[in-house]
Amino acid sequence: MNDTTAPVHAPVEGFPHQDGELLIGGLPLSRLAARVGQTPFYAYDRALITRRVERLRAHLPEGVRLHYAVKANPMPALVAHLASRVDGLDVASSGELKTALDTGADPAEISFAGPGKRAEELHQAVAAGILVNLESFREVPFLARASRDLGLPARVAVRVNPDFELKSSGMKMGGGPKPFGVDAEEVPELLRAIGKAGLAFEGFHLFAGSQNLRAEAIIEAQRQCFDLALRLAEHAPAPVRSLNLGGGFGIPYFPGERPLDPAPIGEHLAALVTRAARDLPEARLILELGRYLVGEAGVYVCRVLDRKTSRGHPFLVTDGGLHHHLAASGNFGQIIRKNYPVVIGNRMDVAERETASVVGPLCTPLDLLADRLALPPAAPGDLVVIHQSGAYGHSASPERFLGHPPALEVLV
Amino acid sequence: MNDTTAPVHAPVEGFPHQDGELLIGGLPLSRLAARVGQTPFYAYDRALITRRVERLRAHLPEGVRLHYAVKANPMPALVAHLASRVDGLDVASSGELKTALDTGADPAEISFAGPGKRAEELHQAVAAGILVNLESFREVPFLARASRDLGLPARVAVRVNPDFELKSSGMKMGGGPKPFGVDAEEVPELLRAIGKAGLAFEGFHLFAGSQNLRAEAIIEAQRQCFDLALRLAEHAPAPVRSLNLGGGFGIPYFPGERPLDPAPIGEHLAALVTRAARDLPEARLILELGRYLVGEAGVYVCRVLDRKTSRGHPFLVTDGGLHHHLAASGNFGQIIRKNYPVVIGNRMDVAERETASVVGPLCTPLDLLADRLALPPAAPGDLVVIHQSGAYGHSASPERFLGHPPALEVLV
Repeated sequence: MNDTTAPVHAPVEGFPHQDGELLIGGLPLSRLAARVGQTPFYAYDRALITRRVERLRAHLPEGVRLHYAVKANPMPALVAHLASRVDGLDVASSGELKTALDTGADPAEISFAGPGKRAEELHQAVAAGILVNLESFREVPFLARASRDLGLPARVAVRVNPDFELKSSGMKMGGGPKPFGVDAEEVPELLRAIGKAGLAFEGFHLFAGSQNLRAEAIIEAQRQCFDLALRLAEHAPAPVRSLNLGGGFGIPYFPGERPLDPAPIGEHLAALVTRAARDLPEARLILELGRYLVGEAGVYVCRVLDRKTSRGHPFLVTDGGLHHHLAASGNFGQIIRKNYPVVIGNRMDVAERETASVVGPLCTPLDLLADRLALPPAAPGDLVVIHQSGAYGHSASPERFLGHPPALEVLV
Repeated sequence: MNDTTAPVHAPVEGFPHQDGELLIGGLPLSRLAARVGQTPFYAYDRALITRRVERLRAHLPEGVRLHYAVKANPMPALVAHLASRVDGLDVASSGELKTALDTGADPAEISFAGPGKRAEELHQAVAAGILVNLESFREVPFLARASRDLGLPARVAVRVNPDFELKSSGMKMGGGPKPFGVDAEEVPELLRAIGKAGLAFEGFHLFAGSQNLRAEAIIEAQRQCFDLALRLAEHAPAPVRSLNLGGGFGIPYFPGERPLDPAPIGEHLAALVTRAARDLPEARLILELGRYLVGEAGVYVCRVLDRKTSRGHPFLVTDGGLHHHLAASGNFGQIIRKNYPVVIGNRMDVAERETASVVGPLCTPLDLLADRLALPPAAPGDLVVIHQSGAYGHSASPERFLGHPPALEVLV
């Protein structure tokens, strides 16, 4: 049935099974489904999130601070769980700011980035006392005014659009014309404007891409970001206290992809910490990670409603679909559709395989959760589990599409 | 600036302008925006929807019934507007069923299709007295039981997966192995099961694709669907009273696409009506259209927050983005991203053009509403209008993504 030379999914870690059932947070899947009270649902394993943070920290030198980018997964309970385990939170809207503040996180350690911040959002940010990553000259007078009106300093860092980009990145966000940040070559002028407006300058935010699985590419980008920040620091109206080197750490989604090795990145960061101590003595180096911290700790679970064979091909028709998990359907920024790792969570002991497709209840051929994947033969009532679903899943899906019930989210 | 040989967008009809402002439902855009009270919003022009129905009816022979597929745009006010202008409504979930029933539409003229109907949905459908398009053998016992429990007949049609597919279709939904409907070759067996279970058989639903701009391809599919239904009718436990030939009528979205000509389709349908009068004397022919009735009547409106020039290229950063309009960002089932027709709605009199990109406020390069399009030079405060946004816009977008405020919808 399977071509043995075809690329396969990297093993998914952290989800053992027992008596044929996947365990999520130590609970057998069917019991968890009963506890949730419905399918479909997303489940995020808090112990796996904690473990990911701890393992990453073991590679990071003292002096590198770890931030969580809320946009990867803004579920309030999950953000609260992470808030006490990382050193700061990064938000992308006033909606995410509310979630971050609700956790009790220190506003001093919250930063706000986004290429189109509304005037009200900038006002809210100053009122909250968080750090604003400036992405445009336009934001300077808005912040100066909010600072005057509120009698509070507007804390700012400059988000730089570098003159290079992160190689082998899932999404390129630097180099060439970009709507993100301010072109590196215009930053000196922006720094003068910041000084003139009396904003509280704190540092730089450089971000060259995301979803990268090659350590050497991330190291190279971090080195270039650091060097660029050093050059730009000469023009700063105040010492650099915060240097956000972005993230870009990927996780394996598709056949043939392999996990990122954080060890060499940690070693290189240690060298950067040494350089920073000399050249930017007040600067704290920050890593901002979203997907890498939570993506592999989450699963999406739906139930088989029907098993249909059409012209010889088995379809598992489930109660879940692209309205809950757009990325797994291959319709969110992917050029070529590939399968996420999918298992039948209550048939983990079954060795037999058939080539089947998993679809959702929507009247559209886009609603495809697994395309011709080798799976144990499944039947109505069985539970389909999509791994690698902890980031950019629930919040990045068109839930209202076709009027089906929403998915729930649980932190286990 | 523009390559004059490059394909261009088809002219958008129904939106005149006055004193430089686009008129929507006769209202100048800036006044409409003030009335709505926020940007971004979707506006649907009720007069254009009415006109589209009337013009289409002028081409259709007596005896062809026109249904609206609610999934294209489930806004309650819009569905209510259409409910009194078409002959029936088609729903894809119990959520859409509620919307349809709330309009006061006759349940006799509501049908329900979907490859993964939950048991509760089938029960609701029988209770509502609507027609269920059977898509699986599995649905038969569920409906028989609901019928017994409720003391009501379960009205059914059979959705057929044809053994051919609609050519030049945006989305192919028939031919080969498919999760939709029952393979044509298995329909006789399903019809026997329906008769045995005592369900009230009413007809067939055949649907071979969607978003097709070639009349001849639609005609060919309708002819083949009719022929197939005739063959299958020989096995039916009761006369065919309803024959839903699907839709598939497309609208022009992208440069180079031209509007569908409904005239030849109407002529061919007249011939089918004559054949039906002879061969299926009790059958009513149904056209089920969604996008074609509402797509061109809708616009998405957002406001320019910032104008940024990055390495020589102007970006208009708006308060709207893919979280409201995923399809316009090119991330919903499109292989190659193309621009929707986009205008600066308050600068309709400006002849000057520059090549600019329109982006949203999200921290992702996917958040692109227009990529290097010729537009009048625009500034903060200006209103960006995305045409062809009346279908698969608001309800098909991941609104919560990154926590920005939702878009409103108005029927003007």
